[in-house]
Amino acid sequence: MTAKGKPATEVRRGRRPGTSTTRQAILDAARARFASDGFAATTIRRIAADAAVNPSLVIQFFTSKEELFAAVMSISPTSLARISTVFDGPDEHLGERVVRAYLEVWEGLPEDSEPLMAMLRGAIVNEQAGEQLREFIQARLREGMGTVDDPDGALRAGLASSMLVGVVVGRRLVGVPILANADVETLVALVAPAIQSVLTAKP
Amino acid sequence: MTAKGKPATEVRRGRRPGTSTTRQAILDAARARFASDGFAATTIRRIAADAAVNPSLVIQFFTSKEELFAAVMSISPTSLARISTVFDGPDEHLGERVVRAYLEVWEGLPEDSEPLMAMLRGAIVNEQAGEQLREFIQARLREGMGTVDDPDGALRAGLASSMLVGVVVGRRLVGVPILANADVETLVALVAPAIQSVLTAKP
Repeated sequence: MTAKGKPATEVRRGRRPGTSTTRQAILDAARARFASDGFAATTIRRIAADAAVNPSLVIQFFTSKEELFAAVMSISPTSLARISTVFDGPDEHLGERVVRAYLEVWEGLPEDSEPLMAMLRGAIVNEQAGEQLREFIQARLREGMGTVDDPDGALRAGLASSMLVGVVVGRRLVGVPILANADVETLVALVAPAIQSVLTAKP
Repeated sequence: MTAKGKPATEVRRGRRPGTSTTRQAILDAARARFASDGFAATTIRRIAADAAVNPSLVIQFFTSKEELFAAVMSISPTSLARISTVFDGPDEHLGERVVRAYLEVWEGLPEDSEPLMAMLRGAIVNEQAGEQLREFIQARLREGMGTVDDPDGALRAGLASSMLVGVVVGRRLVGVPILANADVETLVALVAPAIQSVLTAKP
């Protein structure tokens, strides 16, 4: 490519952008907007305006603001769905289901776990990244998990998640051998009843 | 002070160093040695040699390699003792004791909590700091907590600690409001039975 050639810009200016260009333009606009305004204050409408597309196109590509944020963070839709839906369903074996889902997503395939690790590391190091993640988690917890039956539902889900992420931090980020070398079945046996208790026990 | 004046060096070279100079020399030698060789490979004898003092003087100032490491990390002896001894004692109310101790130390007085936060942040960001902390925690877990009665004791204590540090990360480092705004008594009510289970339940 010569210094004068700018094919990408020409394509976007010259003709209707293709699907992957549009998707990327939305992701770029969303990344910048989440970083400058935070997760809570950012709207799909605003991101669409920044990307010069119709808001319905953003929904068509990414379904919701949550899923768009996850895409910006390179978190796979499967991981997001796995963590989101695991708290639903019957209480029986809930602790075990949640422990297995967290370990699978946070310690499973690198393409699933690395973006989550990067997001956590980023949030701990960088104030702005921390604010985005804080607002994202808060929104997700508030959305699904507090019910009339259990006003502490969101807090319980948040505590269970924090505790399991703590185990992952100990195993993978700090890497303490006693923790890192424990196999999944041992972890499930020791941790699942505790998570069951946090999520369901009446205090 | 003029450019030529070097009083600190002159004092150390010219006469027997005072207590605070010796203590600082040991701390400086320990910091450098832990960083270069890691916690496990570092010996008190080696630190003493680096600081040009007798090993017995290192013990006299800092009691043990663990306490010297904590001092290098600016962790107060009270915090260290609080976290170390909390797993001892009767099983009854063990979960509650541990939860209260962790919250007190990690979220209490800034002079207690800030060095711990700094250490955790450092270990997550910096590979070398991570290795030091990993070896330190491993040594402490192996030392006191696996017994013939319960070969999983060290793993259980490590899991309980990770889970509680996870709660602190959620509350203080990421700062999710639902978690950060929960008061200590609510946390104890929800989390203590879970920690009790991790530490004592037979799988």
